[in-house]
Amino acid sequence: MAGGEAKKPNKPNSSAGKKKEVKKETGLGLSNKKDENFGEWYSEVVVSGEMIEYYDISGCYILRPWAMGIWDIMQEFFDAEIKKMKIRNCYFPLFVSPGVLQREKDHVEGFAPEVAWVTKSGDSDLEVPIAIRPTSETAMYPYFSKWIRGHRDLPLKLNQWCNVVRWEFSNPTPFIRSREFLWQEGHTAFATKEEADAEVLEILELYSRIYEEYLAVPVIKGKKSELEKFAGGLYTTTVEAFVPNTGRGIQGATSHCLGQNFAKMFEIFFENEKREKAMVWQNSWAYTTRTIGVMVMVHGDDKGLVLPPKVASVQVIIIPVPYKDADTQGIFDACTATVNTLCEAGIRTETDLRDNYSPGWKYSHWEMKGVPLRIEIGPKDLANNQVRAVRRDSSAKKDIPRADLVEQVKEMLASIQQSLFDAAKQKRDACIQVVKTWDEFVEALGQKKMVLAPWCDEEEVEKEVKARTKGEMGACKTLCSPFEQPELPEGTICFASGKPAKRWSYWGRSY
Amino acid sequence: MAGGEAKKPNKPNSSAGKKKEVKKETGLGLSNKKDENFGEWYSEVVVSGEMIEYYDISGCYILRPWAMGIWDIMQEFFDAEIKKMKIRNCYFPLFVSPGVLQREKDHVEGFAPEVAWVTKSGDSDLEVPIAIRPTSETAMYPYFSKWIRGHRDLPLKLNQWCNVVRWEFSNPTPFIRSREFLWQEGHTAFATKEEADAEVLEILELYSRIYEEYLAVPVIKGKKSELEKFAGGLYTTTVEAFVPNTGRGIQGATSHCLGQNFAKMFEIFFENEKREKAMVWQNSWAYTTRTIGVMVMVHGDDKGLVLPPKVASVQVIIIPVPYKDADTQGIFDACTATVNTLCEAGIRTETDLRDNYSPGWKYSHWEMKGVPLRIEIGPKDLANNQVRAVRRDSSAKKDIPRADLVEQVKEMLASIQQSLFDAAKQKRDACIQVVKTWDEFVEALGQKKMVLAPWCDEEEVEKEVKARTKGEMGACKTLCSPFEQPELPEGTICFASGKPAKRWSYWGRSY
Repeated sequence: MAGGEAKKPNKPNSSAGKKKEVKKETGLGLSNKKDENFGEWYSEVVVSGEMIEYYDISGCYILRPWAMGIWDIMQEFFDAEIKKMKIRNCYFPLFVSPGVLQREKDHVEGFAPEVAWVTKSGDSDLEVPIAIRPTSETAMYPYFSKWIRGHRDLPLKLNQWCNVVRWEFSNPTPFIRSREFLWQEGHTAFATKEEADAEVLEILELYSRIYEEYLAVPVIKGKKSELEKFAGGLYTTTVEAFVPNTGRGIQGATSHCLGQNFAKMFEIFFENEKREKAMVWQNSWAYTTRTIGVMVMVHGDDKGLVLPPKVASVQVIIIPVPYKDADTQGIFDACTATVNTLCEAGIRTETDLRDNYSPGWKYSHWEMKGVPLRIEIGPKDLANNQVRAVRRDSSAKKDIPRADLVEQVKEMLASIQQSLFDAAKQKRDACIQVVKTWDEFVEALGQKKMVLAPWCDEEEVEKEVKARTKGEMGACKTLCSPFEQPELPEGTICFASGKPAKRWSYWGRSY
Repeated sequence: MAGGEAKKPNKPNSSAGKKKEVKKETGLGLSNKKDENFGEWYSEVVVSGEMIEYYDISGCYILRPWAMGIWDIMQEFFDAEIKKMKIRNCYFPLFVSPGVLQREKDHVEGFAPEVAWVTKSGDSDLEVPIAIRPTSETAMYPYFSKWIRGHRDLPLKLNQWCNVVRWEFSNPTPFIRSREFLWQEGHTAFATKEEADAEVLEILELYSRIYEEYLAVPVIKGKKSELEKFAGGLYTTTVEAFVPNTGRGIQGATSHCLGQNFAKMFEIFFENEKREKAMVWQNSWAYTTRTIGVMVMVHGDDKGLVLPPKVASVQVIIIPVPYKDADTQGIFDACTATVNTLCEAGIRTETDLRDNYSPGWKYSHWEMKGVPLRIEIGPKDLANNQVRAVRRDSSAKKDIPRADLVEQVKEMLASIQQSLFDAAKQKRDACIQVVKTWDEFVEALGQKKMVLAPWCDEEEVEKEVKARTKGEMGACKTLCSPFEQPELPEGTICFASGKPAKRWSYWGRSY
């Protein structure tokens, strides 16, 4: 050890990091409460739960293994599903030349203010500044034009897993709003609109499954308004989640039909079966690391993260509870044996055998990290040939005979997964308020509700609503028009304009 | 179809793309030969084989599904192996602030000229330019300092799969030398040098397996010279491949022991078991998409790519060979049935049932793409209840009874994998020349050999050799000192300096 060389460890001055340090040292819970101080609670729980570390560049965050494990599990699911749909992975460059970036006018207007530009390499100025992709439509479609010649080249279905950069200035928040994030972006081209329409919904269903089956977060499937749709696209479908504590909606993931707009700008033509020249129909769709943040916001509590078993890197944590004269080695051996039994059954299990922390400290630590199920093994358990299982979500305890271990743990994990979803859905549903008039609308917003209202579906009216609700809480906008539409009796009028209503739409403040 | 709107398709003017277009249309082979015109052959084969598309920013390339499939297979292997070693995935930001980038002097000197800088977002100048990671040591290690406190926090073993940017100006080449590339980078910290040393070799063994078991490319394991080691590290181990056609060595992947140099600069201290302050020992290691380029260079031939079965997205391509009066539908059905049988057995198989291409065109097309095994099914095969299998590597043909299909196809794929490695090793070995004197050295270099020579292992001497060999072919340098050292009798002198030789070292021109 070259310990002699060691200076006094001046830890780097990261103010964001600094304020969390105490937690890491003590592991004794959060200083903010979810119901009282949501924003601070969220920042604290993602750091203390060891998902995120604040980085020395504002709006950028380190995804620690505890977060990446969740991302990897979702990726494994989604990647396998899209492969079944014959969508293939590719990788396009991070850099986009200004010429192609600007080719689709609405699209570039939507993204231009947030584009990061590389202007130098080493000490030299580049001849032309180069954009970092905020999304890859414009990087990819010149090559779609090159690759697609005849109807046999269609459909062309590509996906890539990558990072993108949007240099936002408002309220950076880990996972939810960051200047760089990870995502998959799918880009497909079809001969017919029907095929494109069908794929949009097939992908949206996968996004819904990621939220509901994996993250145990209920979402509403629907269509975005003209004002909120993807810049340059034809229409946008979305899965919308809701955070009851803040009363804000959050766009979960979007699947866009681009129509033929990009095809026109990028000249993506093909010869159809009648030997006529035709233009392709395109989709693009993406989900991001935001998913993880939504999950934290929905399930986390005052003890820390609460991870759904299907995405938790560690589903079961086993903690030895030695006691005075007890057979400590026997307890430790039982812990190791239990890990092995569960791992062999495909259950992601670890044991915490550290000798410098008390069982109580370990309980808090693994609760903070949100592990779905804790197993305690003490002298009594050893004597009775059982283990004690404690659920993270409900704190419910259960003694399990060792003979039934695998079966009962599997059942408990499935039950936790279901309970998390049910509880979240119940809370979310309780926040949905149907309104018919402007006054009801304003009242519901004030109560942090997600509002379902009959709407005339006019862009100008949405702009007016935005303007009229612009207060300290932020403007209210449409979240989506749900695919599941309640009945809309003839003569129903728009809550905002008084004109005839065309559809029901969800409205709310949002992330 | 909005075909009426279609203008004459002015395909984008990509000169790099343009020159390849004819190939895509005809699929009738390469216009360059590997032995005559290696550089052009390589550029042509990666494009015609549909691995790469040239991009409108110089030095950046599109990785098409045919290349990404190979990357994904290697990633699956490597990721599972490092998980067994308890290395966990994370994700650090793309951006690095100038302060930390410059903290380790040798390191920044090694990378500074190639760093791309972001200076603007939207229309605004950033307060401080921000670097795009050329590698992540400096981005990560301030946080290692924060996370590591005591010996129980060690080892810390992280990995990330990501893109990095090195804005090189010399000879961009797909896969081999590009301004952005994909890689994994592992970063680990240990309490002792012994642990770090052991991991360096464990990782190097995985890199060797990627090349030899997956890509069927023989590599030499060894240590880099002081001049060639990683900037700022203690020592660098490497797997070195060789391209006989150009007589150039190529660094395959490197596993570095960083020693305590970065630990010192980034103040990564811990309290050891004796409660003393100590500094960690660190490693970093990476392999990149370059691996794919090496594979293409080693195995490709004048008909196109030659893919080793273990990494081929499609291991078997089935082509119907209908004939005049024959039962075409029966043949097509047999193709589909054969795909199903092989896929169920876990063999990646597709069939090409397009009706607008002849069997001969399809043979050429799939040979160009390097599919290891082609199965032809014609009327005779149907009648005899057999298929005809044709190897891509040797063109050897074999009739297989349908009853033995799975077993024999598996055998043939294993045999192709082995033959590719054996052939590559034989060629590589034939290029190794042992020399003892400067004259022999110069002669061997002229014959495109990889030279194994006794060396005094002095940095100044390597610089001299570089200077003396700087010709139109490029300077010669050390590739590595192989771990398998031939005997070095007492009194052996260095081929270049005449001083006593300390070890055998490989020398050559390199990529």
